[in-house]
Amino acid sequence: MNAIFQRRSIRKYEDKPVPDEAVRQILRAGMAAPSAGNAQEWEFILCRDKEKMAKIMEMHEYAFALKTAPLAVLVCGNAQREVYPGEDWWVQDCAAATQNMLVEAADLGIGSLWLGIHPIEKRIRMMREIFRLPEHIHPFSLVALGYASKEKEPIDRYEPGWVHEEQF
Amino acid sequence: MNAIFQRRSIRKYEDKPVPDEAVRQILRAGMAAPSAGNAQEWEFILCRDKEKMAKIMEMHEYAFALKTAPLAVLVCGNAQREVYPGEDWWVQDCAAATQNMLVEAADLGIGSLWLGIHPIEKRIRMMREIFRLPEHIHPFSLVALGYASKEKEPIDRYEPGWVHEEQF
Repeated sequence: MNAIFQRRSIRKYEDKPVPDEAVRQILRAGMAAPSAGNAQEWEFILCRDKEKMAKIMEMHEYAFALKTAPLAVLVCGNAQREVYPGEDWWVQDCAAATQNMLVEAADLGIGSLWLGIHPIEKRIRMMREIFRLPEHIHPFSLVALGYASKEKEPIDRYEPGWVHEEQF
Repeated sequence: MNAIFQRRSIRKYEDKPVPDEAVRQILRAGMAAPSAGNAQEWEFILCRDKEKMAKIMEMHEYAFALKTAPLAVLVCGNAQREVYPGEDWWVQDCAAATQNMLVEAADLGIGSLWLGIHPIEKRIRMMREIFRLPEHIHPFSLVALGYASKEKEPIDRYEPGWVHEEQF
């Protein structure tokens, strides 16, 4: 499917907001991901505040995309909605939601960047503070969104040596 | 994008193989996922052996879909290809690859099921044994693939209460 292969990591964005309807559709795609026991234990915090973004850039060494991104979405796991408590499925469930968001964005012609938060303690603490997260809300990823300042070509990363038959 | 919303968890499959070209395209989509430092630290083991599947069903309480699935793909993280060793990004990178595979499968009219392996010790040990994984290869998820025996309707799980502005 084209959007999967057209999705590229975008680090520079046009000065142009993401329309509300597109934001909603991207979040809808995130929530369409599968989750362990169908827990759907995700939360999404929209950030358009440039002061918050500046703070994040100070602390997160790879967050410079926020300099131009009009929007960032913090994807979090809500431990209180886990169906199998203590097994931390929220990590992979939030990853699946994040990936759906990136692909949906690509399909809408919107660029994105997945900024890793979990499991880096320094980044987790910073997100907890900036977005006032209670204990049971675990920051997972920060997704930058916006219109790419330059188109990137789709890429094919298929590597047959990483495919094995019946055993490693 | 339709495939994201059409993807449903399929637990019963037709007795009909997944064409090789579709398998390759699904793996290609997995490898198109983003990864930390662009490590692409994934490996994929194709399993069509019904004896292996029977063994897995004995031990994994939610694996009954393998009774009818013609194919399962074990997605693994290769710790030796990590760009930031010790930070375990392979968990979320493999989750992103897994989600891309499910969406690509849906786009091709192929049903799928994400069976969780990591972080359940019992399941990890079983996968290591059955697929002869060396120490540095971490089994992450097992993806069942095949033609659904019954169509499922797309689902909309959008929940506005899980979307927050600027803070939790």
